[in-house]
Amino acid sequence: MFAVRIDLNADLGEGFGAWRLTDDVALLELVTSANVACGFHAGDPPTMLRVCTAAARRGVAVGAQVSYRDLAGFGRRPMVVPAGELRAEIVYQLGALQACAVAAGTRVRYVKPHGALYHAAADDPDQAAAVATAVAGVDPSLAVLGLPDCALSAAAASTGLRFVAEGFADRAYLPTGGLVPRTRPGAVHADPHTAIAQALSLARDGTVTAIDGTVLHLAVDSVCVHGDHPAAVTLATGIRGALTGAGVELAPFA
Amino acid sequence: MFAVRIDLNADLGEGFGAWRLTDDVALLELVTSANVACGFHAGDPPTMLRVCTAAARRGVAVGAQVSYRDLAGFGRRPMVVPAGELRAEIVYQLGALQACAVAAGTRVRYVKPHGALYHAAADDPDQAAAVATAVAGVDPSLAVLGLPDCALSAAAASTGLRFVAEGFADRAYLPTGGLVPRTRPGAVHADPHTAIAQALSLARDGTVTAIDGTVLHLAVDSVCVHGDHPAAVTLATGIRGALTGAGVELAPFA
Amino acid sequence: MFAVRIDLNADLGEGFGAWRLTDDVALLELVTSANVACGFHAGDPPTMLRVCTAAARRGVAVGAQVSYRDLAGFGRRPMVVPAGELRAEIVYQLGALQACAVAAGTRVRYVKPHGALYHAAADDPDQAAAVATAVAGVDPSLAVLGLPDCALSAAAASTGLRFVAEGFADRAYLPTGGLVPRTRPGAVHADPHTAIAQALSLARDGTVTAIDGTVLHLAVDSVCVHGDHPAAVTLATGIRGALTGAGVELAPFA
Amino acid sequence: MFAVRIDLNADLGEGFGAWRLTDDVALLELVTSANVACGFHAGDPPTMLRVCTAAARRGVAVGAQVSYRDLAGFGRRPMVVPAGELRAEIVYQLGALQACAVAAGTRVRYVKPHGALYHAAADDPDQAAAVATAVAGVDPSLAVLGLPDCALSAAAASTGLRFVAEGFADRAYLPTGGLVPRTRPGAVHADPHTAIAQALSLARDGTVTAIDGTVLHLAVDSVCVHGDHPAAVTLATGIRGALTGAGVELAPFA
Repeated sequence: MFAVRIDLNADLGEGFGAWRLTDDVALLELVTSANVACGFHAGDPPTMLRVCTAAARRGVAVGAQVSYRDLAGFGRRPMVVPAGELRAEIVYQLGALQACAVAAGTRVRYVKPHGALYHAAADDPDQAAAVATAVAGVDPSLAVLGLPDCALSAAAASTGLRFVAEGFADRAYLPTGGLVPRTRPGAVHADPHTAIAQALSLARDGTVTAIDGTVLHLAVDSVCVHGDHPAAVTLATGIRGALTGAGVELAPFA
Repeated sequence: MFAVRIDLNADLGEGFGAWRLTDDVALLELVTSANVACGFHAGDPPTMLRVCTAAARRGVAVGAQVSYRDLAGFGRRPMVVPAGELRAEIVYQLGALQACAVAAGTRVRYVKPHGALYHAAADDPDQAAAVATAVAGVDPSLAVLGLPDCALSAAAASTGLRFVAEGFADRAYLPTGGLVPRTRPGAVHADPHTAIAQALSLARDGTVTAIDGTVLHLAVDSVCVHGDHPAAVTLATGIRGALTGAGVELAPFA
Repeated sequence: MFAVRIDLNADLGEGFGAWRLTDDVALLELVTSANVACGFHAGDPPTMLRVCTAAARRGVAVGAQVSYRDLAGFGRRPMVVPAGELRAEIVYQLGALQACAVAAGTRVRYVKPHGALYHAAADDPDQAAAVATAVAGVDPSLAVLGLPDCALSAAAASTGLRFVAEGFADRAYLPTGGLVPRTRPGAVHADPHTAIAQALSLARDGTVTAIDGTVLHLAVDSVCVHGDHPAAVTLATGIRGALTGAGVELAPFA
Repeated sequence: MFAVRIDLNADLGEGFGAWRLTDDVALLELVTSANVACGFHAGDPPTMLRVCTAAARRGVAVGAQVSYRDLAGFGRRPMVVPAGELRAEIVYQLGALQACAVAAGTRVRYVKPHGALYHAAADDPDQAAAVATAVAGVDPSLAVLGLPDCALSAAAASTGLRFVAEGFADRAYLPTGGLVPRTRPGAVHADPHTAIAQALSLARDGTVTAIDGTVLHLAVDSVCVHGDHPAAVTLATGIRGALTGAGVELAPFA
């Protein structure tokens, strides 16, 4: 019996047409939750269907990785989208993935915003409310995945949705609990051992050491491993090994 | 009590972003089934949500009007899409509309291919099978709407899906039962009285007079009225009036 | 001989695929400069070619109406686009229209940003510099059209590009010289006589009366008439008539 | 002094947004002509500008690799596009790349259709005429690159455009001179030595051995090396080495 249990999530299916970005098959052997791109920043229908099928076969939970409509910018360019439009765009993406999941013999269990929308939904109550309202209107049993204690967790709570907080294995934290912006040096842990240690600390102790040495308490139910760089599979393998070696059970949160 | 009953369907929600093509609100007062564009030839998420909401309020049945991915060509350009890709693209569009329908308090009841895909699915067993497989994989209780006795009706039958045949009020028929191609003169009935009489004949007698005078028997459960031209609302009003005046009940087929 | 001379510009070619927004042919009889949409917020290649051909036939100057890449939002949604990407996106749009213009027997003479980019380039020196650098890199003899005394006019000056300031016939002005935001009441002159009078005052006197009664001096070489609403042609006809009746010569600025 | 001279061309810039397909920098060291994707099947503005800049620095000739509008299908899905629309779409893409080339200090010298359009323009006189008319309308000094003795070479001739024929290093030929379809076994030479030998034979002798052993005479001025598979750079290095080792001069055809 396990004393501690955590979910490992990664962004998958982030190709489009002839292009691939993530090693979906390898990562599906390692993670317990797959944030599947829904076509607005990445992800075409055949890829979505293929990833859902592969996830279903391995018992990996499927989540909708929703984004602003920005294929050319990979959803990373902040946009000012009116709340009503944003709500509809999320309903659309979520539904598209739900049908792929059903056709693949599984179902969508949660929603995670991507890129610029991830940050907007964490910071801006209106954008967060648009996301939560969209999800609740489609299926109130879905969970929402994001940063601990942010605008999105508040919006999920007030909409009656379950919110699941995640930590990052390879991102440095500010003493405030926020992430060190990617534009600053040291934002990403280049050393895989640091990332593995941080994943273990997040999972087992609920703590992370900030960039200034402060020890933060972060209650997270999932650890995000990035899927879109060459060493992603190696790092995820290391994290999975360290967690299971330390007696941490890996299981989907939903 | 009505002796005869028919459905009136129209393509709706065929705008995109700032653009409008169909007078959705006016047509929703006249038809019993709305073929809602799903984003691949027309139809953006806010429009889809708005049309579903307006349809739900009026008891109009919502169908997914699925298309090849061709926004610039309005889905009218024939494309050779591999069956697996096509199947996934239809699953995607159908799911996107399902979520909009659910968020609007209704649900999708049928699927109708649009434009070049309408004709490809009617003629080509492989394309028809891709459509039917997609629909059945998402929800086997959905109906499929199309031409009588075509490749799509056969594919629906062999997949276990209900198929609903439709006739056209304003299109001239060949003696073979096919439509006179739009490139030939007389393909579209310019005179609204001809279109109204044809709708009545289709609904009440199950017959239509072909371009050479042959009387064809066409068993249809729905009559399609085109929504994308200026006189669409006037024509649909005339057809609805003639049908109800003749004692034909108008009701969704699904 | 004319004592006063002004340009009338309008946004044209703002359709896409099956959709139309502007009555391009009617407006080309009235304006002297056509801001042709280049495909990123509106404007598909056949429309661009058609508008260029019609403009060439009438001696109307062709300008590139460049935008953020946002077809679903008609380029009205503010986006944070890195300067290097924005520069490349403007080079791309400008070149696409240049080739259409050449194939139509004319050439592009100026560039005008559209929608959210219009405002970003007016306010933000970095976005303005990206626009000016893009234009200068393609053809330093092109003019740039925009608000008087803004970040874009400064960027044009420092890049060695000619800048042409425009005023608006149907928009209310703040006492600072800025436009009353569309979200505030009275932002748009509903009464065509007000718009006509404002166009005349801008052209003949270089003045406009702000919303609080202040008389502003605005040195503009062009007056923008909006093309994307039903009464656009009527209003443009009225403005053209009033200007020529008052002895103002209408001629392209470039 | 060289007795024999040939061009080596490759498809470059075939990424989009966050995605990469071709190792543009490595291939630009090896080829003499770069077929740069123009945004309809691949190729975003920043990539186009970057590839043009890198090509200009190395003296590599820039060509416009034009395609049907099909990002999701990488331009490989055959489409029935009316000639007028196709012409405009090619004008658009060509112009977009011309401006990128100018901004990068070089200019576009030729046009090569991509994927499904490559084959349609080779087989169908109407599609070929649309391509040739588009190119001639923009710049009659541009060359067109394609299969020897095809519909496109005829259309180029009758439009007054220079046509340049290309052969393929790694594709097997039918005894008729056509390519073995990719769906048949042996369509692509898996062994790099075969591809290198075929390139040398094409360049030096103007011959190629068809799949049945027939020796074909193919007068080509360029050899195409594919850029979109992992071994592309190795193969191109081998071909370049073999050609220069055999005393063949490598130089752009335009």
